[in-house]
Amino acid sequence: MSAAGSGADAPDRRTVAFLEDAPRSSAPVRVAIVGATGYAGAELIRLLDRHPSVEIVGLVARGREDEPVARSHPHLARTGLAVGDTVPDADAVFLALPHGASAALVPDLATRGMRVFDLGADFRLRDPDDYRRWYALDHPAPRLLEHAVYGLPEIHRAELIALRESIPAIVGVPGCYPTATILALAPLARAGLIGDLVVDAKSGVSGAGRDPKPDMMFSELNESVRAYGLAGHRHVAEMEQELGLLGVGSGVADPNPGVRAVDFVPHLIPMTRGILSACHVRPVRRVSPGELDDLYAVAYAGEPFVRIVATGPATKHVLGSNFADVHVRLDERTGRILAIGVIDNLVKGAAGQAVQAFNIVHGLPETAGLEQLPLAP
Amino acid sequence: MSAAGSGADAPDRRTVAFLEDAPRSSAPVRVAIVGATGYAGAELIRLLDRHPSVEIVGLVARGREDEPVARSHPHLARTGLAVGDTVPDADAVFLALPHGASAALVPDLATRGMRVFDLGADFRLRDPDDYRRWYALDHPAPRLLEHAVYGLPEIHRAELIALRESIPAIVGVPGCYPTATILALAPLARAGLIGDLVVDAKSGVSGAGRDPKPDMMFSELNESVRAYGLAGHRHVAEMEQELGLLGVGSGVADPNPGVRAVDFVPHLIPMTRGILSACHVRPVRRVSPGELDDLYAVAYAGEPFVRIVATGPATKHVLGSNFADVHVRLDERTGRILAIGVIDNLVKGAAGQAVQAFNIVHGLPETAGLEQLPLAP
Amino acid sequence: MSAAGSGADAPDRRTVAFLEDAPRSSAPVRVAIVGATGYAGAELIRLLDRHPSVEIVGLVARGREDEPVARSHPHLARTGLAVGDTVPDADAVFLALPHGASAALVPDLATRGMRVFDLGADFRLRDPDDYRRWYALDHPAPRLLEHAVYGLPEIHRAELIALRESIPAIVGVPGCYPTATILALAPLARAGLIGDLVVDAKSGVSGAGRDPKPDMMFSELNESVRAYGLAGHRHVAEMEQELGLLGVGSGVADPNPGVRAVDFVPHLIPMTRGILSACHVRPVRRVSPGELDDLYAVAYAGEPFVRIVATGPATKHVLGSNFADVHVRLDERTGRILAIGVIDNLVKGAAGQAVQAFNIVHGLPETAGLEQLPLAP
Amino acid sequence: MSAAGSGADAPDRRTVAFLEDAPRSSAPVRVAIVGATGYAGAELIRLLDRHPSVEIVGLVARGREDEPVARSHPHLARTGLAVGDTVPDADAVFLALPHGASAALVPDLATRGMRVFDLGADFRLRDPDDYRRWYALDHPAPRLLEHAVYGLPEIHRAELIALRESIPAIVGVPGCYPTATILALAPLARAGLIGDLVVDAKSGVSGAGRDPKPDMMFSELNESVRAYGLAGHRHVAEMEQELGLLGVGSGVADPNPGVRAVDFVPHLIPMTRGILSACHVRPVRRVSPGELDDLYAVAYAGEPFVRIVATGPATKHVLGSNFADVHVRLDERTGRILAIGVIDNLVKGAAGQAVQAFNIVHGLPETAGLEQLPLAP
Repeated sequence: MSAAGSGADAPDRRTVAFLEDAPRSSAPVRVAIVGATGYAGAELIRLLDRHPSVEIVGLVARGREDEPVARSHPHLARTGLAVGDTVPDADAVFLALPHGASAALVPDLATRGMRVFDLGADFRLRDPDDYRRWYALDHPAPRLLEHAVYGLPEIHRAELIALRESIPAIVGVPGCYPTATILALAPLARAGLIGDLVVDAKSGVSGAGRDPKPDMMFSELNESVRAYGLAGHRHVAEMEQELGLLGVGSGVADPNPGVRAVDFVPHLIPMTRGILSACHVRPVRRVSPGELDDLYAVAYAGEPFVRIVATGPATKHVLGSNFADVHVRLDERTGRILAIGVIDNLVKGAAGQAVQAFNIVHGLPETAGLEQLPLAP
Repeated sequence: MSAAGSGADAPDRRTVAFLEDAPRSSAPVRVAIVGATGYAGAELIRLLDRHPSVEIVGLVARGREDEPVARSHPHLARTGLAVGDTVPDADAVFLALPHGASAALVPDLATRGMRVFDLGADFRLRDPDDYRRWYALDHPAPRLLEHAVYGLPEIHRAELIALRESIPAIVGVPGCYPTATILALAPLARAGLIGDLVVDAKSGVSGAGRDPKPDMMFSELNESVRAYGLAGHRHVAEMEQELGLLGVGSGVADPNPGVRAVDFVPHLIPMTRGILSACHVRPVRRVSPGELDDLYAVAYAGEPFVRIVATGPATKHVLGSNFADVHVRLDERTGRILAIGVIDNLVKGAAGQAVQAFNIVHGLPETAGLEQLPLAP
Repeated sequence: MSAAGSGADAPDRRTVAFLEDAPRSSAPVRVAIVGATGYAGAELIRLLDRHPSVEIVGLVARGREDEPVARSHPHLARTGLAVGDTVPDADAVFLALPHGASAALVPDLATRGMRVFDLGADFRLRDPDDYRRWYALDHPAPRLLEHAVYGLPEIHRAELIALRESIPAIVGVPGCYPTATILALAPLARAGLIGDLVVDAKSGVSGAGRDPKPDMMFSELNESVRAYGLAGHRHVAEMEQELGLLGVGSGVADPNPGVRAVDFVPHLIPMTRGILSACHVRPVRRVSPGELDDLYAVAYAGEPFVRIVATGPATKHVLGSNFADVHVRLDERTGRILAIGVIDNLVKGAAGQAVQAFNIVHGLPETAGLEQLPLAP
Repeated sequence: MSAAGSGADAPDRRTVAFLEDAPRSSAPVRVAIVGATGYAGAELIRLLDRHPSVEIVGLVARGREDEPVARSHPHLARTGLAVGDTVPDADAVFLALPHGASAALVPDLATRGMRVFDLGADFRLRDPDDYRRWYALDHPAPRLLEHAVYGLPEIHRAELIALRESIPAIVGVPGCYPTATILALAPLARAGLIGDLVVDAKSGVSGAGRDPKPDMMFSELNESVRAYGLAGHRHVAEMEQELGLLGVGSGVADPNPGVRAVDFVPHLIPMTRGILSACHVRPVRRVSPGELDDLYAVAYAGEPFVRIVATGPATKHVLGSNFADVHVRLDERTGRILAIGVIDNLVKGAAGQAVQAFNIVHGLPETAGLEQLPLAP
């Protein structure tokens, strides 16, 4: 599917995807997880260990040798898994590594015939220049970028399906902030409506990863809120790329001028999981509440993981699940649209989304291994 | 092993129980949940909606009429369930009600042929006098107490199995503090070793339920810890009953003098879920670390939900799961034993344990619907 | 205003105000606090009990009769104060009441010769129509509005000083969100620069007050963030009034078009105290970083409680203090200005600001009783 | 005052101390703070900067050279202080250093004529062997231990007063857990009543200091509780030393057998500040509630910082203050006494207590600089 094809037939392409109950091969898909000792790694293990069609054949982290997974993740002791140093042969490999590290590894993994699901940033952007600009990274495998799909199923399901036949098959799993933000804005972007855009996001702390840093200590973060990344957060690149592409098929002359230079400010708040992205949109033209509701209802009809909610969503309502809750509202007084997206940053914002994309690429039911309901309170 | 299994060969009866993979009837077990709008109710829905052998036929709460479950529990919107006012016919009914309320309801439910799983206190104690003393309650159905089983599978699995053939079948699902405490202490109690006992417990706030109370407001509890229930917490009754019974078969002349009047002090700490019960035991005789380890290893060998951990357990490692983590250690300097039990109060301390008991009573695999791994960080 | 300071050169008038060390009457100012059992009441007691020039002559709450203050506020036990039902004679009275309640009370209190510091909304707005629109309130004393001063000393110090000679003397102490927001934006508003404005604020929970409400329970708010007040938060009225007035003297033809209909979205985050207001401004014309820095440096030079900070401010750095931390930054890529204001909502956002205004009105050193440093970590 | 003199005339000796309003020299006491960049250092600055009789002449931390204090402690920016590398001449020096580091430094500081207030462990224990046993430390200045006073004013006020005339003058400021625990138990220990003792404590995270450690990260600690230090926490040494000494004058033949080998288990809970120490005591003989109340009332009559509270105390009620709240209760059913002590670990458990001892040693009013009321909610 080309980006241009999206607007008109969006529901159809999706419906096909989840209705198809392709006969699965009885053998489980063998997967490896690289970067298994971090938080995203833990979530991948949590989900994939219970996945009905998956066998975990390897957990990998630098310098570990047959170390019980419980040493890194006591909560996962009962999986009985161990962490080693080398990537075994597998059908698919999930990478939860710092940016730059994946790109160095992927050519070899792809050559070995594995489908790659990279939870880092190395295969999210299409333009190698964007890596220079946002990551100060000379991408080591720029030609692979053409083969990579941005793994947001609600936007790129058709390309993910197409990866079933593709070699190599590389999925750049979206960042947590872009996931919440793009899902909140996609229906507006497809309609070319975004005239001016402020994205003000709030995140739990786990998104910062597991390495000890002075400003990630409990006593520094508890009972406090602060804005960060003020000099420019890298996730902006994904937002601009994806929201920009969505407007291409809108038929509007100059669609979404507001997404050319997104004003994005993230905040750290004293909780572990969850992202809420509040997107303040000044539309390019007058819209009615009814039109808004229709746009969102059509965009997400049949989506297994997007819930449109009528009141202000809370991160608590998606905790531990792959759901994204989306709320949209027109403020008649100001003329602005407020679109809010809410996810669990480690699930729909990382491991869960990776599994969702994996399911699609492997012809499995899209929700396989992701049926858990959220944990509240 | 038959349902008639005796208490004598404790390990055996347990092993048999989880190994047996009795052919299930293909029809799901129809269940109703009364008190569906509270926190325990939400957890029951969360677990039972995904249970492979269960159909939820009714959610019940006073004064509701076909109200979408999302109004009480937004996170459960996708279940599509609704809450009503009357208890439909079902194979089993879960009651999540204030004490006193269940006892008034159960005779009728039992007459209608339903198996009853009461998450409240009304069927936990064997002696009607205990209800007068601890709950100021004249038990409305004292004769039913004889038929009720204290639903802690690790202790009463045989009795739960026996309920398969019993009419009425009533399970008093244990309280959250007793669950963590009894599991921490059971191996010592069975050996008659508890000479002196202090139980100092810490709980998240969700155990206090959902009704708005001034001292349960966020601003009162956040960034604070306090002891409560100092005049005597009702859960002591269960601890004394169950720990006392465990000593009966110990062969020790005066087993467990320390459990006659348990010194129990609970604390509220600023988190939502989780209980840690620290049990300080002065043993009746010298024990060695090796003896301790053996006692616990034997007691919990093969248990699907009890994990013995070598270092101080954290509630985070069981969050959202039915696991109970148990740690035991001899302090050679003081001669005391420290036994710690850790659970998620809403899962192993309430809804999860109820489902576990339900599985046993209905001849289902004991772990059905409870396979989710804990959510950390 | 005496002390020779003119209004023209803002810094002067302020500097003079805090330098002046007018001879104080040796007798303390007698104050009463109405609404003493709530959170703002507690903070007033905390500050005023230690104020070097104040004597608390009465704590008042409905239906209390000589009740020790420790019953409502255990932390304040050592003040030895008691709460009663009637307002005693005093020089000044602080009102911490729901909106509407103060307006009904103030005429009588003013007649009795007391200076009034109302922490509620009843005397913040100048236009009675605004009360109808935002509060659905037919203001019971509209003529008193003319005499009331909006008690934000950094903006209205001269008017507060003028109240020394005024009868009646009524101060409408600003709301918490407006305080953080107006202080973040005032230098831009004075320069007429605010072309487009999004205010995205995050607040601790104590701002919601002390009355038990289902959605203010710990388990509902902990480990979650949500937007609220989406239908229009009342504090918008103050922001628009004050930011609009600031532009009047800017000399710009159409100053601050962005403040006519402020897009304001508040969020509740899991902490007790603190507000961070992130103000996203599209300026009416190009500005340079240097110009921005100058505007803020000049605006707040000599201010005792405003600190301009070079990096993203955190609420933890103002906790328990009357400081407002302000950060401003130009994003050259987007052309937007980000102005952040951070306060403790119960101090600079309520009780502390009231005491600051009180000090000015009574000719006391502006920082008297407010010298405490913030509490971190 | 000898430890033996404590029981009978306790109130008197204390009364003298606070009543005495010795004519202070008009010159402020010059103090230096070594270890100024940690959490205890921050609290010392917070309190001493506002102390009416103190001038801070130096903040010291390794490798800093005239670095603004705001770099370590943004909340303290307005003090205008800077951190350097060398200890200036001063009347008194506060040391907030890891154990071992102070002992190496003190001989020189004492020789330079400074009074030393060590917030670390190096001067808390009287017996050099205890340093070997509990700290694996060969104390570098064992002879100075004889001159050091354990700086818990409520127990050792007379010795602190005696330090006014002493050279060298060294105060070992107590640890946080011992402070809460000893204050909770002192009246019982003086009466020789402690037959058996379990101390189960809960602490906020700031007690672990500021160095980044993997298990002190927000995401590891939030929404979790765990026991730690199970192999033996070093603070036990102080508890046993001090509680043992208190019994010496009790006149009981074998006073307080329960304090010979204290069973102490600390827990980390998800909050920043505060310690609650629950002390479970089996008394050596029957006591009545009235006798208990009297013991505590007498012991703490006139104490400026100890508040006896009738209900279960909460750490929130002492936050930011130097108060210790103490609650005692007889459980008639079990015969046990529950004594609870609650403090802010960084104030009464560290910096505040150091200032209190400093005040006494320098003949200042004991509460100088410590009058702030707690911050709640």
